[in-house]
Amino acid sequence: MFEYEIEPRFNDTDALGHISNTAFPVWFEQARMPIFRLFHPSLDVESWPLILARVELDLKAQTYWGSPVTIRSGIGRVGTSSCEVIQEAWQNGREVARGRGVLIHFDYDSEQSIPIPDDVRARLAEHPVDSA
Amino acid sequence: MFEYEIEPRFNDTDALGHISNTAFPVWFEQARMPIFRLFHPSLDVESWPLILARVELDLKAQTYWGSPVTIRSGIGRVGTSSCEVIQEAWQNGREVARGRGVLIHFDYDSEQSIPIPDDVRARLAEHPVDSA
Amino acid sequence: MFEYEIEPRFNDTDALGHISNTAFPVWFEQARMPIFRLFHPSLDVESWPLILARVELDLKAQTYWGSPVTIRSGIGRVGTSSCEVIQEAWQNGREVARGRGVLIHFDYDSEQSIPIPDDVRARLAEHPVDSA
Amino acid sequence: MFEYEIEPRFNDTDALGHISNTAFPVWFEQARMPIFRLFHPSLDVESWPLILARVELDLKAQTYWGSPVTIRSGIGRVGTSSCEVIQEAWQNGREVARGRGVLIHFDYDSEQSIPIPDDVRARLAEHPVDSA
Repeated sequence: MFEYEIEPRFNDTDALGHISNTAFPVWFEQARMPIFRLFHPSLDVESWPLILARVELDLKAQTYWGSPVTIRSGIGRVGTSSCEVIQEAWQNGREVARGRGVLIHFDYDSEQSIPIPDDVRARLAEHPVDSA
Repeated sequence: MFEYEIEPRFNDTDALGHISNTAFPVWFEQARMPIFRLFHPSLDVESWPLILARVELDLKAQTYWGSPVTIRSGIGRVGTSSCEVIQEAWQNGREVARGRGVLIHFDYDSEQSIPIPDDVRARLAEHPVDSA
Repeated sequence: MFEYEIEPRFNDTDALGHISNTAFPVWFEQARMPIFRLFHPSLDVESWPLILARVELDLKAQTYWGSPVTIRSGIGRVGTSSCEVIQEAWQNGREVARGRGVLIHFDYDSEQSIPIPDDVRARLAEHPVDSA
Repeated sequence: MFEYEIEPRFNDTDALGHISNTAFPVWFEQARMPIFRLFHPSLDVESWPLILARVELDLKAQTYWGSPVTIRSGIGRVGTSSCEVIQEAWQNGREVARGRGVLIHFDYDSEQSIPIPDDVRARLAEHPVDSA
């Protein structure tokens, strides 16, 4: 699995005193960068070939500002033009959240999904995790 | 259903040129306020009795800065201490996203779920939607 | 002055319990839209002709989630290629923040400032405020 | 000077394609943590003794997602109850922004400023920078 360390920002907190639930989609997006790179090594936004179709997020424990969070990301099911990203967030040895995202290989000009090419498929296969 | 109008902020966009997927959890949270109020009329954060346990989000169409977004929110299944919130986001007559959140009636001091009282249950029953 | 009403979002709060100082630049940017439109009626980001060079922000009172905030914006000094935007934020009858931004009329391709044309200058002159 | 490395998040970008101006107050706040600690070693938000009264930000060059940003922070003028924080943001060897914040030593209960104690004053004096 890919590992990415997030430093929670004070701005990720909310008035309830802890990290806002809304921080996780931001963190998980950032932690998907190595996966975006498997599709699109340049990460150039002008030719970005992916769209996020679905997000699932389970919030399992309170998360605190002041300690780093490790995000682990891997690839679940891969379909014709879609790919499942499974992510876990850990803080102080405890799993605080779990996410599942569905990415579509996508052509923004025609607004249509496009099949995942074999070379990308091979790279995705190197980072498997069990589907959530 | 409760309706809440969101004015997308320029800051809700990202380098792909449109509204970021990460804006929806922020908007949906804000649009849940009338539902939070059914549980906790004062909305005082010191005695906040709810925790978000799960989020599901389907992104159905690109969303643009510059046009308002209407969020419709209603109550799906209600369990002993949990409650499902079903939300839709519409822009320019098109459904752009759909969300499902699971709220837990929660005591932050003991870190335990607590049953939803009957009066709250009665108020929730006035805003039903089909579960997603 | 231009008036823009902001609905503070729960996500604009932080762990100190009130609106984060970081929300004001976001709100002020959104409230500058009528001013951006004086320069660039389409608001098309592909041909955006402005860059923000400087921000000053005075935080005058605590700001709360749950009440709308009115942002008033007007034009201060106008130079050859720059323009000062003066902004005030009011909540519950109290001025909670004051901002001053310096916008540069800018060509992103050549990365150079460009003089403000006379027609824009005339439109800016219709929205004067005293410079901060 | 204190150094803090920020990893720009994709969510820090906006539709203009680069890092939003609104990211800098967020980054600078996070990078002030070692300074907050000089006042308040526990960083406990319940007894937080500081309020931000003023922010100045000069945006000097475009900032990009994909490369780390180093924030350098030091102490400028120190008054009876206020303290100036001078901050610089560097990316790829270039200064991209400069900030100046004014912190007030503050009692949130009485909503009044309080003099900076001598021990804090001594610790602040160990991190001087020229005032902006």
